[in-house]
Order: sequence, then structure tokens, then C-alpha cells
Amino acid sequence: GLDPRFDRLPEELKTGDPIEAIGAFSRDLLEIVAPFVPAVKPQIAYFEVYRDAGMKLYFELVELAQQLGLLVIGDVKRGDIGSTAEAYAAGHLADAGSPDAVTVNAYFGADGLAPFVDAARDGGGGLFALVRTSNPSAADIQDVTDAAGKPFYEHMAEQIATLGSGEGLVGECGYSCVGAVVGATYPDEARRLRELMPQQIFLVPGYGAQGATAADCAASFKSDGSGAIVNASRSVIYAHQRDEYAGIDWKQAVAAAAEAFAADIRTALG
Amino acid sequence: GLDPRFDRLPEELKTGDPIEAIGAFSRDLLEIVAPFVPAVKPQIAYFEVYRDAGMKLYFELVELAQQLGLLVIGDVKRGDIGSTAEAYAAGHLADAGSPDAVTVNAYFGADGLAPFVDAARDGGGGLFALVRTSNPSAADIQDVTDAAGKPFYEHMAEQIATLGSGEGLVGECGYSCVGAVVGATYPDEARRLRELMPQQIFLVPGYGAQGATAADCAASFKSDGSGAIVNASRSVIYAHQRDEYAGIDWKQAVAAAAEAFAADIRTALG
Repeated sequence: GLDPRFDRLPEELKTGDPIEAIGAFSRDLLEIVAPFVPAVKPQIAYFEVYRDAGMKLYFELVELAQQLGLLVIGDVKRGDIGSTAEAYAAGHLADAGSPDAVTVNAYFGADGLAPFVDAARDGGGGLFALVRTSNPSAADIQDVTDAAGKPFYEHMAEQIATLGSGEGLVGECGYSCVGAVVGATYPDEARRLRELMPQQIFLVPGYGAQGATAADCAASFKSDGSGAIVNASRSVIYAHQRDEYAGIDWKQAVAAAAEAFAADIRTALG
Repeated sequence: GLDPRFDRLPEELKTGDPIEAIGAFSRDLLEIVAPFVPAVKPQIAYFEVYRDAGMKLYFELVELAQQLGLLVIGDVKRGDIGSTAEAYAAGHLADAGSPDAVTVNAYFGADGLAPFVDAARDGGGGLFALVRTSNPSAADIQDVTDAAGKPFYEHMAEQIATLGSGEGLVGECGYSCVGAVVGATYPDEARRLRELMPQQIFLVPGYGAQGATAADCAASFKSDGSGAIVNASRSVIYAHQRDEYAGIDWKQAVAAAAEAFAADIRTALG
């Protein structure tokens, strides 16, 4: 998870133009983590705050990550309707230089998702629809239950499962290009969602700085060890600020944290 | 509603660089509509599809609209958690050159909205949280009902009403800086939502090209004629493509459509 904030960069990089510093940090970071992980998830908010200069850098980093052999999941959480959703899908998933997959907000229902689904199918990419987020107040709104006691996020899950089973969307591996975001901070719910969405790859935030363990993340995988990709952002990219890596060069700290993260997940999956 | 698409521009502008054409069209458009309307809502998706060049133009147009005396509602529908939401709130609502208000997606619950609420309160701006969208499949997901038969979007409305009643958020006018997006295409639901959210200003999409009439929009207002702002996008900005304005210069068509739109809403409100 590439979530670069100027105020959290290594001290040696906190000089001059923020966007240049973030660019230098991010480029090094991608090269350091590439041997340990299959994918990177840049969070566009940290680029967008620098407006056009930030957007330019975001797409440069998408390209660099792909050149390094990483899959890129653009964490954009876009969502809208009709031709507006089409414009978002074009700019973030379909057009040349786009990430391989994006996160989307599914509150608009199927017609809001359709342009993203079309772009994913036609371009060999993917999308991850928000089902269960990892934040403390997720429950306030996502846990509203129906007459049968079923929470709202399970309705969302069923909609995503149905939508993702459409023609041309499921590959030979048995997974759909329509995935789901399922926070690791709620493992019991993740187990239930794993049953409700057998064809969805789960994008799992919440590991590390947000408090979820590798065992919590394991709830989002199938018993064969497939079906999910876990995200770690702050615990890896700001490893130089963690006590256990105190005094170590930031690049070595990031490499060590990335390697330890991957090993931790592998171990939890047995 | 400023939703500029190159392929729908007046023929005389459809030459050369798309972003330059969209810029020229949009600048003229803002000057033409400014005498008739209090606010403009640029839809960032149509700019973002041009990446950094589009973002640059978006913020230039925000500034121009403000110079013309218009309030600017940035239709960004951003939503995320923690420091990511903070970055979005900074870039789109708090930082210099931002719109006066933005639309946000509230699926994350209160902690995802908090940075936008803080920015609105501190800067004298506002936000409009998605409650009931105007698209055909909105019902699939937003109409899931609880044990008492209450639809999910009413739960969302109650959360927004509670959040918006916080200290320092409600002005002397009785309205909160936390508003709600309520689609005009569902007028019966809008009437119910008007009761549930007495302190929210409604941003009402759906008029014109999406099929809602001025009478439908009136359901979002209070009996004193306050409480809502209606959006018209395609029916005004592409007025030159409407049969009733055939053969008229596009600028005159836009002016006529903007004036007719405002008059239509005024008449419906009595």
C-alpha cells in the first residue's frame, strides 16, 4: 500500500518540494518491495492532494510499478452513475497507462458498476467493490440488518457475487474480475463473506497499523490458500519509524518489513 | 452541472486538443449561466479522465466560477477512512483554491466523514453526503429494508442528520453545513427524507435529462421554498442539441435553457 505522506517521510527526504520528495521516496519504495510482493496499491488521495502535479506522479508510479513486474491496484474508490461512471472507468481502468485494477464504491448499485466491469472484462483487468470496510465506524452503517437479521454488507456481497458471475467475467481459475474489499479487522464477518462470494478475490486492508493480524487476514482466504490479497501500507512503507527497525537505514527497514509481512501471511496460511 | 464531454461539445469547438476545447467551452458556459444560478457543480470525472491536465483545468474553473460570484460544489463523491479521508478533504475542500462544498460517499460511516465535516466547519464550506441517488439501480442496494420495513437509505439519512447537528455545524438559518444528495427521480422518498433531515440542505440531481420534473424537485424543499438546490447538467450545457433550440447559437441556447430552468423551479415552488 503506497500511501506516501510528506510529514512521514524519512528525515533525509523531507527537504525541498513535497511532490519531488514523495516521488523519490515512492520510486525507491517500489524497487525495494518488488521482490517480495505481487502487487502494489497506490492510494490516490495522497497524490490528489497535490492536484495536477500529484496526478502526474500517480500515473508515473503506476507505469513504473508495472515495469517492475508488479500488478497495480489503484485505490481510487470511485463511484457514480451513467456517463460519469464511464469517465471514471476510462481514466482509471481502461485508458492506456491505467492500473490493472481499481477499488470502487458500490453504493449506486449495478448500473454504477457496469462501466468498471466492462473495462475490467475488455482489458483483462479487475475491480474491487467495497463490501466491508476496516474502519471503526463501518458497523454504524454497514451493520444495519434486515427482517431476517442479515446485515446490509451481506446484501452488498450478494449483489457483487451476482454481478461478478456474469458472462465473460469468471476465469479458468474460478475467480471473477469483480472482487471485493473486505476489511481484515472483522475476521468472523470475513469468513461468512468468503462463503457468500466464492468467485471473488478479496482485497484485504487492515493488516499492521490498523490492528489486524495475519491470522485475522487468513479468514479471507480459501482453504487452498487462494482467494485474497492482503494489503499492508504504513507498517511497511514507514518501517523506519517502527521501534524494531530503529537505527536502520529506511530502505533496509522497508525491505525487512516487506519480507516479514509476506512471510507472516504465508505462515498464517499454513 | 458542469459535465463537459468532448464528443458533445458544439461542433465549432470540436477541434484540436480536447482539454483546450473543454476549457474554452467551460469558461464560456460559466459566464453565460452566472446571471441565472447561484451555484455550479463541476463533475470532476470529466476532467480526471484527462489526468493531470484535466485536474489543472478543474481547479482553474473552480477559481473562475468563484470570481464570477458562483458558489462551487465539487462533485467528487470521495470517501475513505482515516488519514486518507483527511487527504481528500484537504485537497478538495480545505486547501486554497478548493470548491465551497463537495459531494461525499458516506458508506464508511461517521469516521470517514469527519475530516470533511471538520473542513466544512473550519472553512465556512459544506458537504453533501450521498443518501438517495437518482439512478435506476439505486433501489437494488439502497432499498434493502430492516425488520421495521425502513429502507437502508433512511438509516443513512438519520446518520447524516445526527452527524450534521453537531456543535458549530448549524448556522443561524437553521441549516447545517452537512447536506445530503437526494435524487429528484424519487419524489415520494424525497418528501420523507425532507422530514428526516430538517437541517440538511438537499442537493437534488435528476432534473431534465434524467427525467425528473420541477414538481418532482419541489418535494425536496420546505414549504417556505428553502432547503434545496436543484442541479441541471445536460439539459442546460448541451441545450444546443435540444430540438427546441435547434438552429440557435450554442451560447444563446445555453442562456435560454439556464433561464428557463431557474424559472421552472421557481414556478414549481409557487
